[in-house]
Amino acid sequence: MTTKYVYLFQEGDANMRELLGGKGANLAEMSKLGMPVPNGFTITTEACNKYYEDGETINEEIQAQIMEYLGKLEAETGKKFGDAQNPLLVSVRSGARASMPGMMDTILNLGINDVVAKTIADKSQNPRFAYDSYRRFIQMFADVVKGLSKKRFEEIIDEVKVQRGIKDDLELTAEDMMTLVERFKEFYQAELHESFPTDPKTQMMEAIEAVFKSWNNERAIYYRRMNDIPSSWGTAVNVQMMVFGNMGEDCGTGVAFTRSPATGENKLFGEFLMNAQGEDVVAGVRTPQSIDQLKEVSPTAYEQFVDICSKLEHHYKNMQDMEFTIEGGKLFMLQTRNGKRTAQAALKIACDMVDEGLINEEEALLMVEPQQLDALLHPMFDPEALKKATAITSALPASPGAGSGQIVFTADEAKEEADSGKKVILVRLETSPEDIEGMAVSEGILTVRGGMTSHAAVVARGMGACCVSGAGDIEMHEEEGYFVVGGKRYNRGDWISIDGSTGNVYGEKIETVPAEISGNFERFMSWADKARTLKIRTNADTPRDARQAVEFGAEGIGLVRTEHMFFEGDKIKAIREMIVAKTDEQMQAALNKLEPMQQKDFEGIYEAMEGRPVTIRYLDPPLHEFVPTDPEDIKELAKEMNISYDELAQVISGLHEVNPMMGHRGSRLDVSNPGIAHMQTAAVIKAAINVNKAHPDWNIEPEIMLPLIGDLKELQYVKKMVTETADQIIAEAGVELTYHVGTMIEVPRAALLADELAQEAEFFSFGTNDLTQLTFGFSRDDAGKFLPEYYDAKIYENDPFARLDQKGVGKLIEMAVTLGRQTRPDIKLGICGEHGGDPSSIEFANKLGLSYVSCSPYRVPIARLAAAQAAIKQK
Amino acid sequence: MTTKYVYLFQEGDANMRELLGGKGANLAEMSKLGMPVPNGFTITTEACNKYYEDGETINEEIQAQIMEYLGKLEAETGKKFGDAQNPLLVSVRSGARASMPGMMDTILNLGINDVVAKTIADKSQNPRFAYDSYRRFIQMFADVVKGLSKKRFEEIIDEVKVQRGIKDDLELTAEDMMTLVERFKEFYQAELHESFPTDPKTQMMEAIEAVFKSWNNERAIYYRRMNDIPSSWGTAVNVQMMVFGNMGEDCGTGVAFTRSPATGENKLFGEFLMNAQGEDVVAGVRTPQSIDQLKEVSPTAYEQFVDICSKLEHHYKNMQDMEFTIEGGKLFMLQTRNGKRTAQAALKIACDMVDEGLINEEEALLMVEPQQLDALLHPMFDPEALKKATAITSALPASPGAGSGQIVFTADEAKEEADSGKKVILVRLETSPEDIEGMAVSEGILTVRGGMTSHAAVVARGMGACCVSGAGDIEMHEEEGYFVVGGKRYNRGDWISIDGSTGNVYGEKIETVPAEISGNFERFMSWADKARTLKIRTNADTPRDARQAVEFGAEGIGLVRTEHMFFEGDKIKAIREMIVAKTDEQMQAALNKLEPMQQKDFEGIYEAMEGRPVTIRYLDPPLHEFVPTDPEDIKELAKEMNISYDELAQVISGLHEVNPMMGHRGSRLDVSNPGIAHMQTAAVIKAAINVNKAHPDWNIEPEIMLPLIGDLKELQYVKKMVTETADQIIAEAGVELTYHVGTMIEVPRAALLADELAQEAEFFSFGTNDLTQLTFGFSRDDAGKFLPEYYDAKIYENDPFARLDQKGVGKLIEMAVTLGRQTRPDIKLGICGEHGGDPSSIEFANKLGLSYVSCSPYRVPIARLAAAQAAIKQK
Repeated sequence: MTTKYVYLFQEGDANMRELLGGKGANLAEMSKLGMPVPNGFTITTEACNKYYEDGETINEEIQAQIMEYLGKLEAETGKKFGDAQNPLLVSVRSGARASMPGMMDTILNLGINDVVAKTIADKSQNPRFAYDSYRRFIQMFADVVKGLSKKRFEEIIDEVKVQRGIKDDLELTAEDMMTLVERFKEFYQAELHESFPTDPKTQMMEAIEAVFKSWNNERAIYYRRMNDIPSSWGTAVNVQMMVFGNMGEDCGTGVAFTRSPATGENKLFGEFLMNAQGEDVVAGVRTPQSIDQLKEVSPTAYEQFVDICSKLEHHYKNMQDMEFTIEGGKLFMLQTRNGKRTAQAALKIACDMVDEGLINEEEALLMVEPQQLDALLHPMFDPEALKKATAITSALPASPGAGSGQIVFTADEAKEEADSGKKVILVRLETSPEDIEGMAVSEGILTVRGGMTSHAAVVARGMGACCVSGAGDIEMHEEEGYFVVGGKRYNRGDWISIDGSTGNVYGEKIETVPAEISGNFERFMSWADKARTLKIRTNADTPRDARQAVEFGAEGIGLVRTEHMFFEGDKIKAIREMIVAKTDEQMQAALNKLEPMQQKDFEGIYEAMEGRPVTIRYLDPPLHEFVPTDPEDIKELAKEMNISYDELAQVISGLHEVNPMMGHRGSRLDVSNPGIAHMQTAAVIKAAINVNKAHPDWNIEPEIMLPLIGDLKELQYVKKMVTETADQIIAEAGVELTYHVGTMIEVPRAALLADELAQEAEFFSFGTNDLTQLTFGFSRDDAGKFLPEYYDAKIYENDPFARLDQKGVGKLIEMAVTLGRQTRPDIKLGICGEHGGDPSSIEFANKLGLSYVSCSPYRVPIARLAAAQAAIKQK
Repeated sequence: MTTKYVYLFQEGDANMRELLGGKGANLAEMSKLGMPVPNGFTITTEACNKYYEDGETINEEIQAQIMEYLGKLEAETGKKFGDAQNPLLVSVRSGARASMPGMMDTILNLGINDVVAKTIADKSQNPRFAYDSYRRFIQMFADVVKGLSKKRFEEIIDEVKVQRGIKDDLELTAEDMMTLVERFKEFYQAELHESFPTDPKTQMMEAIEAVFKSWNNERAIYYRRMNDIPSSWGTAVNVQMMVFGNMGEDCGTGVAFTRSPATGENKLFGEFLMNAQGEDVVAGVRTPQSIDQLKEVSPTAYEQFVDICSKLEHHYKNMQDMEFTIEGGKLFMLQTRNGKRTAQAALKIACDMVDEGLINEEEALLMVEPQQLDALLHPMFDPEALKKATAITSALPASPGAGSGQIVFTADEAKEEADSGKKVILVRLETSPEDIEGMAVSEGILTVRGGMTSHAAVVARGMGACCVSGAGDIEMHEEEGYFVVGGKRYNRGDWISIDGSTGNVYGEKIETVPAEISGNFERFMSWADKARTLKIRTNADTPRDARQAVEFGAEGIGLVRTEHMFFEGDKIKAIREMIVAKTDEQMQAALNKLEPMQQKDFEGIYEAMEGRPVTIRYLDPPLHEFVPTDPEDIKELAKEMNISYDELAQVISGLHEVNPMMGHRGSRLDVSNPGIAHMQTAAVIKAAINVNKAHPDWNIEPEIMLPLIGDLKELQYVKKMVTETADQIIAEAGVELTYHVGTMIEVPRAALLADELAQEAEFFSFGTNDLTQLTFGFSRDDAGKFLPEYYDAKIYENDPFARLDQKGVGKLIEMAVTLGRQTRPDIKLGICGEHGGDPSSIEFANKLGLSYVSCSPYRVPIARLAAAQAAIKQK
């Protein structure tokens, strides 16, 4: 049986999106609905995949089918390709399953040549139109199929205008257009050493191949990676009879949305141009008219269009984005698809459509991209104020939101100024853990160095602060208190504004509007909460983060990284004293200083969570992260600690590790220094007892999570430290307190031996960051250097640190889930780490029946929606 | 049902070793065989484990059983514990499944107190004997059970001697002994604030507990770890009626072997002392007599003993090591066990016993520890010459064997001097990859820094060169051409000798005797080859190593680490040119230089292997390993390469990685730089074609192994580079050549997705070093810092880098084996890396039915024997 690679529009429908692509399926659907769609056919995505399988060749079988369907099209339209009497012209357009940038541009007017152009000129009595169409086709074909620069064609047009002494394209006559056709062909011949193809069938086959090729151009690959689209989808190609919006004053072309894509308002929204072809609407030479005005210009077409819009929206149950052309007063639909929209519009449309009875709540939930919600969670610049502002530089959009404030250069300054009520923007070469407090009080963070995963970017995203990073154009004079960019100097105290969603930096104050998380947002999210079964927790290390997360709907904390608290104030001093301790007594003295501070930290977090569950992970990073490595800094610290430089330097060099990611960290620290586990346990338990006393109804049950466990005996050993301390404190306090001890599953061995670990662990939390690193065998810090080459080679299609690798890492997780439940059927299971906020990873977690995912506060709403969508899809 | 924790000797037998320990089981067996064994009972290893389970308490149930069996012993012997008429004295001795050092010493004469001592004095008419036994018991009990220093007791004896004006212990009278008993008790009371226990039952229970405790003392734990003995074995305790070798001239005690433990000669071998107790034989106060002399001294006992020896050897089918006591002319057997022996003796005994018809070849194979063979593979010092030498310092025994030569301080010197026919010892602060050639020509390597896994140690073991590392006492003056140790100066050219099996360094020339791998060795190994099914390959990077491995019986090469060749001569230059290449042309130029050099390397290896299979692994380490990091070295290299310091420094700093073990290495290098894979393929294929031409009967089929693969597409991508280049070269050469492409399984993801990888990989080789690192999540370089604490905490009992972790890593390997065979039933499977030479890991490989293991040349014989033993055991 031979595969069918080509479908007439009337043979398909909207369900055949995978095979026909979005555009083809919707053209077919509109045909089926009896709407006026110019005839045509679609070459399938399978043909595209076959093209690549066959070493980038369109095989004879497919070529034959294309010719067969071209014949059918000719029969239907009564026109003939390349015919001197009644020639058929077509458009060739790409159309993948999802619309994506980077794909081949449309080629219009294909099928034209000298003979055909003359026929059209004669028949239309409009030679200028005929030769304008011809020269446009040559331009498009040369650019899109052959890769010749558009610019050179524009230069030729300019040369002709100079010769003719005219300035405006519109002044070019039919003869000028004929000249251009000739000059374009000459240029084509000179550049490519082949004459411009006059055979319409050759033109078509080359255009189809160009569509296939464009599936694998760099932009398309990049877009697919960013949007998790597998390359195996392929693209379809649509070949459609041309209708002309540029044949006279009763012709026109336009685009429209059934509702406002900006606000969601339920009102037709769009624009059109009479006597024009598609590209003119966007070219900006003439100003398009609002769609309302079509009522006067072409009332019949308008009425028919309004009717079609309504039908399409009801049919697709979604806001539609359409293209149409009017030829001789007659309306033709060229495209319909679900319209892109802003986050605000998305929520309004979803809510309105439910109210209108068009869709139910679950359908509404599936209509909004979870990722889109992010835009609603951060302050934005006032759109009117922004229009008047000009960016002074632009860098990486490292953490979304907008901020405006006065320049400060250090974390200390930031705190001081913020305490006195000022709004500040912290400008740094790059940030370090010591800057966290200063970052937290700033309106935004701007760094000169560092990328999307720099310290500043990661921390800012975690705390929802806006951040622009890697602004290399800025020349820093931190000590002198100013920076220079674009030749202008900005001093400490000057106002600047940054937009972490675009990466723009402005040298002035711009008003912001606050995040909008009530109204439609609240209503919509309540539907999500009804639909989902997965609990959403947050990763939070401070009461501030915890409160923010609760506001965004977090149902608990899945990960408190205790070490993040260690950099503040006196704690870092005590930690360093612990590190340099030479005797047990010195060690204990340092731990004794830390304990009450940690206890206060935990009390703050318990208070903020108001009785919701809190999972506290014990100290995880290697100790060298708490000490400096630069000789100058060591010198300073030695002085501060009142020990010799040599002594401190020796301690620090003793902490050096070859592969710190695989070093002395996690529970390994507790095995070496049981004092740390005892101290942290005392702080956790005492804090819970205290807060429970103040709020007896909260009934806090601390969840203690041991990191980097790889063996049952290791877990038993460290757990014993925990239970001994905890039980003693509880007994001494004379209270009732339930606490839970669980483990992270981060090293592959833990997943492989999860049945054993579950004997002791009451819960597992999958630390998917480390698990991904160890399963792939590449470190996140280093993989950045070679992963791009893997994307180029199409080995990996997306970043396993952003999207969970369900095949490899997921297999380990699945094993651990199965094994863990064998031993302890009611074991609580969760994911913490960056993947906890990624929709596809959440879908995976839902499929495995995990209890919860935990993500940074600003991803909580995204996770709530993603979990709801997963639950609905898996029904 | 209650557990039986105590067994009379007559209730047990030799098969109950796990429960009764080795000593207990053999005492029971000898009883069963009707040999004269003093009555007694054994407390089981399960009681020991229960003791630890119960928080280091002997529970009432066990105590009751002990008392019950004590009663039975009393009934049998007709004596009574603590009795004034006919008192029972016992010895209490530990006895684990395998004999091990660090366990509790024997306590003799237990049950004695004032009353009993007097009774014994009266009954034996020998008060000196009675009180000597008493004071000995107090000493032993205080030392072994209570941890009081032996030294203090010796001091008290000395005080008494001074008071009495005598010099020799033998001059002490009965009264002196009574004084000592009193003074010892006083000292005991003063130190421990409790009086010495006079109740024999209390004495016994405390002694038993001390045995249990000794199972977990540091030395025992260390020994177990070194010998792969799990702590769950526990130790048994033997309580046995005392017989006295020190009651008169018709009494005596001795030890003997049924054959010579030094040479294996089939002749009774041992010594004895009349009128003495066990400890006197080893104490060296009196010189023991040779066992032959017993014939004259006590002919009946001797005859009986010779008869027993013969029976025991036939019964156990192994050379026996025995203890005996003669009391009043009557022989008593106190112990028998398989005797420890030298490697030479082990082979002779095994061969002789087969010739004698005592055992068959398979039993002979099981009788020799594979690890022991190592001693036969290296030159040793002439024993007579060694007796006269004194060590000038001692450090780590990093690589076995003995070497004697003149001091050189650099690899270049070593080559020069060796070329001129001199024997040299290379002395370095530490070695680096550039030193390899110099190391290869030296008789031995001595380093001041570095441990058992330092570069020098690892490389030396690989090449079978002897090495002593970490000799920190040596003060180096390399530039001036001398070193100082023990206050003496050793100059370039002076003779020194080093023993890599003991770590000793000698300041003189000592004659060596060559390795002995013919005779019994050859015969024995031929049996091993008959018995095993697993093939043994070797890891070899040079023709020299390859030839050595073939001599040791290697059947192929499982791993050629191509990078090890890159450090030699011009190759390192070309590699560096490749690294700094800025254009494709520069890159290609560097690769063009490398290709013929690599081809020559491979030709050499093929020649050395004479047609045996050779697996070549492509470049594996990150490129920064090929460039210096020290600014001085960079400066020099920049000059040499004729580029600026800054440029080179920038390239080098760009290569820096945070976690190099998880960085840009393995096949990732080929994805980024396909030129490397093309170059290596060209070299491999051209070498094979050339060598096949010269030796048509060899029919070499190159096996190309791609490292660090984690994904099917990655494997396809790199494999395509290989096949394209290979197929083209083969076609151009117009020859037939079969080659194979396979992959290492080193990252967990490869094991998890082995079914996919097997679509493309013709073979898998488990790189268990990296797989262990990634499965545990700790790097070999860093784990050294905390693993000792894990051993102390009894979390891990042995080094997973030395002995394969069958539970975790092994589970992954098993998965990969199963999955790989699903896709490709005949897939070839092997293990390369350090584990390939470890007997327990080889047993695991045999169980999984792998095709081969590959290990360093000097481990090949060990692996052959281990594979034979595994095959026999698994029958």
